[in-house]
Amino acid sequence: MPAALQMPEPELIDHAGLDSAVYLRIYLLGLKIFVPIAIIAFTIMVPVNWTNNTLEHSGLTYSGIDKLSISNIPTASHRFWTHLVMAYAFTFWTCYMLKREYEIVAAMRLYFLASEQQRPDQFTVLVRNVPPDRDESVSEFVEHFFLVNHPDHYLSHQVVYNANKLSELVNEKNKIQNWLDFYQNKYARNPSRRPSVKTGFLGLWGNSVDAIDFYTCKVERLSRDISAEREKVTNNSKSILPAAFVSFKTRWGAAVCAQTQQSRNPTMWLTEWAPEPRDVYWENLAIPFVFLAIRRLIAAVSFFFLTFFFMIPIAIVQSLANIESIEKALPFLKHIIELKFIKSLIQGFLPGIALKIFLLFLPTILMIMSKFEGFISLSALERRSASRYYFFQFINVFLGSIITGTAFQQLNSFIHQSTNQIPKTIGVSIPMKATFFITYIMVDGWAGVAAEILRLKPLIIYHLKNFFLVKTEKDREEAMDPGTIGFNTGEPQIQLYFLLGLVYAVVTPILLPFIIVFFGLAYVVYRHQIINVYNQEYESAAAFWPDVHVRIIAALIVSQLLLMGLLSTKEAAQSTPLLITLPVLTIWFHRFCKGRYEPAFIRYPLQEAMMKDTLERTREVNLNLKGFLQNAYIHPVFKSADDSDSDIAMEEWEQEPALIATKRSSKRATPMPSKHSRSSLSLPEVNNECSKP
Amino acid sequence: MPAALQMPEPELIDHAGLDSAVYLRIYLLGLKIFVPIAIIAFTIMVPVNWTNNTLEHSGLTYSGIDKLSISNIPTASHRFWTHLVMAYAFTFWTCYMLKREYEIVAAMRLYFLASEQQRPDQFTVLVRNVPPDRDESVSEFVEHFFLVNHPDHYLSHQVVYNANKLSELVNEKNKIQNWLDFYQNKYARNPSRRPSVKTGFLGLWGNSVDAIDFYTCKVERLSRDISAEREKVTNNSKSILPAAFVSFKTRWGAAVCAQTQQSRNPTMWLTEWAPEPRDVYWENLAIPFVFLAIRRLIAAVSFFFLTFFFMIPIAIVQSLANIESIEKALPFLKHIIELKFIKSLIQGFLPGIALKIFLLFLPTILMIMSKFEGFISLSALERRSASRYYFFQFINVFLGSIITGTAFQQLNSFIHQSTNQIPKTIGVSIPMKATFFITYIMVDGWAGVAAEILRLKPLIIYHLKNFFLVKTEKDREEAMDPGTIGFNTGEPQIQLYFLLGLVYAVVTPILLPFIIVFFGLAYVVYRHQIINVYNQEYESAAAFWPDVHVRIIAALIVSQLLLMGLLSTKEAAQSTPLLITLPVLTIWFHRFCKGRYEPAFIRYPLQEAMMKDTLERTREVNLNLKGFLQNAYIHPVFKSADDSDSDIAMEEWEQEPALIATKRSSKRATPMPSKHSRSSLSLPEVNNECSKP
Repeated sequence: MPAALQMPEPELIDHAGLDSAVYLRIYLLGLKIFVPIAIIAFTIMVPVNWTNNTLEHSGLTYSGIDKLSISNIPTASHRFWTHLVMAYAFTFWTCYMLKREYEIVAAMRLYFLASEQQRPDQFTVLVRNVPPDRDESVSEFVEHFFLVNHPDHYLSHQVVYNANKLSELVNEKNKIQNWLDFYQNKYARNPSRRPSVKTGFLGLWGNSVDAIDFYTCKVERLSRDISAEREKVTNNSKSILPAAFVSFKTRWGAAVCAQTQQSRNPTMWLTEWAPEPRDVYWENLAIPFVFLAIRRLIAAVSFFFLTFFFMIPIAIVQSLANIESIEKALPFLKHIIELKFIKSLIQGFLPGIALKIFLLFLPTILMIMSKFEGFISLSALERRSASRYYFFQFINVFLGSIITGTAFQQLNSFIHQSTNQIPKTIGVSIPMKATFFITYIMVDGWAGVAAEILRLKPLIIYHLKNFFLVKTEKDREEAMDPGTIGFNTGEPQIQLYFLLGLVYAVVTPILLPFIIVFFGLAYVVYRHQIINVYNQEYESAAAFWPDVHVRIIAALIVSQLLLMGLLSTKEAAQSTPLLITLPVLTIWFHRFCKGRYEPAFIRYPLQEAMMKDTLERTREVNLNLKGFLQNAYIHPVFKSADDSDSDIAMEEWEQEPALIATKRSSKRATPMPSKHSRSSLSLPEVNNECSKP
Repeated sequence: MPAALQMPEPELIDHAGLDSAVYLRIYLLGLKIFVPIAIIAFTIMVPVNWTNNTLEHSGLTYSGIDKLSISNIPTASHRFWTHLVMAYAFTFWTCYMLKREYEIVAAMRLYFLASEQQRPDQFTVLVRNVPPDRDESVSEFVEHFFLVNHPDHYLSHQVVYNANKLSELVNEKNKIQNWLDFYQNKYARNPSRRPSVKTGFLGLWGNSVDAIDFYTCKVERLSRDISAEREKVTNNSKSILPAAFVSFKTRWGAAVCAQTQQSRNPTMWLTEWAPEPRDVYWENLAIPFVFLAIRRLIAAVSFFFLTFFFMIPIAIVQSLANIESIEKALPFLKHIIELKFIKSLIQGFLPGIALKIFLLFLPTILMIMSKFEGFISLSALERRSASRYYFFQFINVFLGSIITGTAFQQLNSFIHQSTNQIPKTIGVSIPMKATFFITYIMVDGWAGVAAEILRLKPLIIYHLKNFFLVKTEKDREEAMDPGTIGFNTGEPQIQLYFLLGLVYAVVTPILLPFIIVFFGLAYVVYRHQIINVYNQEYESAAAFWPDVHVRIIAALIVSQLLLMGLLSTKEAAQSTPLLITLPVLTIWFHRFCKGRYEPAFIRYPLQEAMMKDTLERTREVNLNLKGFLQNAYIHPVFKSADDSDSDIAMEEWEQEPALIATKRSSKRATPMPSKHSRSSLSLPEVNNECSKP
């Protein structure tokens, strides 16, 4: 682990990608924001809170924590001015750090994009909604359109095939091939007896046949089907989607095309930067504009219902899943259930289990929603899921813990409450819930980080898989694959701690050390995990930072509103105008940052593109860009034949001397950009599979 | 007037510009939306409302209008389903018309932009925030930057001088010149006596000198000052602003530059489409990015205070401006004021006069705010002012008439009310205010239109000016100048009628005929005025349509929310879920339209640009574009010397045979595009002042 901490940032970016390096910066940002805030809070606010005895005289039960909080200050006290001044100080500090971080991340992103490697996505634009044409095929039409409208820059294009069926067949073949390998291994170990298999359902009944012959035959049949399907897909014009990856001769040409409108009708010829080849979510490439709009509406409405009404089906399941109804439905289990031990177990577990299962599947549900909405890259899918997951947590974890009742009951009471009553209702409960949230941070945050370093959950899952599913070496390899870091679940969790920290900074500063410990621990652990364990699935060049920024701003505004509500119940009403100013300034700050830094995450400056192009042109005169881009954007299913080659390339990479040895065990190596990028730029030959990073 | 109605739309666009033609379509849209709604409402809803006798039994006083309204339906009646179905029908009809109109206007705009004429703004991009450079002047730096980053397309550029002082001097000179002309005329009429003038304050005291000599001398001195200042401005590098108008060889190049980000730092080298030369608001060209952000904040906050607290200073003025305090301040007026007739006049007038004066100056105040915000074209200034004026009217006229009390009192009560109570509070008052709004439509709308055709206000102002200020022919010309149609005040007024119509369509359909009459009358009258009276100040190619669209959508949503509030007090609660669906669908419809049509108003498709470029290149081989663009974007003050030439050109234009004779009396002719555009494209010479339209 110390080795992981020593790795300098540029090397980390080389090793694990910019996304991971910037992801770690979120934890660092937490430390940078909360350590100074905690120091000031403890030197100034804790004494101010402590030296009262409101709680002692109130006759209420209170804990030591409450004595350090704002609750200990008598109503209408002038000491609230301290909290007001602190709220301003904390806001300014947070904004300052946010601005600085935005600036750094934007610079890192631009530097990364301008780094030496050629990548196919720098030259390529994704065109969607190619209008149908009576006389020309999609491919011809695309070529003509771009030859006419970008005559000096158009290079080539790659049509997109609807290969979903082919993809299914290939998966099927791989599964069968795996069984074949299993039986061949079995036969090799024990040559005396050829393994046999039953042809019926799940291999449980039916005629018994020779396993190796059976699966060899099946594999052959599937191979034939696949080549037929492949033939059909590539030759049948109907399987060509109205979308294409268009490549340009220069980065400048691609930047221009990606950022401008092509056709009179803004729903046709939609251009955007192509995602990295491995980041493309192929299934969504063909959704037309009108359907996108409708899908977005459906997803928004269903997310609303999911957030506010998810308790209803769970409550129904809970009411059904009691012992009586189980006995009624499955009478033969009656005598087992009636055993006292089993009965108490069921009674204890059942009510919670539906909720637990739901929460376990929530990220998956949100991901399905995002896929339904039609995003075309994995990174965009994860960003969208993260936003929704954060909102869900804000409503159901944060507000749900402060105010009792389901989200829908809250919503209902908020609608029936006056607007200025809402921050009061929540604000008043804030100090009382400090102990609860401290426990939450320790259980969810600290323990979560500890479990992460031990990798408890994956360990259990691995052993379960190993026991039940693993048949061949390839299976074991797959079971051991640690996957990616999971931005869509990880980032919302961090954001919840930002929210808690900012809300409690002024109210109950004793919470801050717990949050700081969480950020510190998590930073160390995740840095280790990113370097040694996780794989990188795609590289979006920190495209998620605007989301991170806006969610911290939202947390800041929530904390300001709740403080306003709390102080107004404390009869410190003269502070209200000053408190209203805070969110106004914060929103303005957000708009300023948006204007100043967000373009770096959306657009690609022409100056940069031109600089890079010129540099490249002088360095290598006979560059075969067309060859380099030719096969970059091919549906992965068409590449499966070359899998073995790419594995070899990967292994070559793995064997290269690394500056700091990592313990990654999976062969699914991280620095995938190497797969499609070239560092030795003078190689003119077509080379899309094996190269050095 | 019949002639004005007969003029076909293409000719109207030629004659008065696309802005005016599309402005008239707003009135037509009102007719298209409300005529079918009124017919359906009268055939279906009036009988449903009329055949009840709730009001007769209620013992309340009521008018015939109330019997036709929703008030006449008993609580919890099933007849409310009719209103619900009608609300859906009206929403769908309005949305359908809005979509159709958006489509037509977008097509008109694209067609207009693609029309045959060359205009300098098609080739020109405004670059702002050019960073300072130690070694190069702004001009050199701009040239180098664009030569590097747009090598194939850059043509030339025009730096922007800070000519505000020069502009003042020129105005001063024109004033003095006018006095000189006046005295020379006087002398010519009466040669026996040379006119004399006093040199002191306002010509009231001081030494008496010969007027012609005095002013001749003054004019000469100013002319010398002007040439000195002109010299200084053009030669001193400090008077060059960090902004430039950059021209490109092709429309394609300009479209690319305007729509992309140039530099790494998104606050430097900001590019946007150059407005038309006459549309440029020169004073704002040099505001840096940070100040723009701060100015926007200040403008937003002060507009908030203006809207909600404008009554406070007026109330103070009103409390001061009573007879007693006037007598105290100006005791010598006492015996005049004490006259009974004068006293009652003052007592009757004074309280209202402060408010009247404020409302008279409101558009000017809003325009000053917009200028402060830093918009760089007159069209953008007017659009912004129109948005603000609409919001002000919505709060202070619409809501202010429905709920008594000042805007701030309303705001305060809304904050202290529960969220679902607000639509109820307003919704309940809606039917009761129908009579008031009918009167309002007649007084403000009908009478306003009638006054417009008689041009009462300009007539009074003209005669006042003629009496007090006019000295020479030039002055009379200026006093007779009818000005422009005034989008910033006219459009918000129309929108108020859309709002009233949509809100009352379901509640009190009897209001609809009054609105239809207003739209019909106004359409006829303004069509006449646009053709025969008003001048065109700029041509934004209907850039305001997205604003018009979004305000009608907002009115639709307000009407739906108020209906929901009203129905929930009528105990028709089972309809609430269906009513909530309406605004959700409307918002979704708006987003769809925004995605589908708004790009046509913001971006310029490359396909169009390329088409136009190719066409032009084949038609005229030796086109001197550089000469054509050379002087297009010069600060008007540098052109003042050529004024006489342009006047001649104008007169030439006026004498051309018009297909429909117009009665415009001003020489400030409308079709100003002619000034900088060329129809006979093969003329290679530099020609920026005189040409045919």
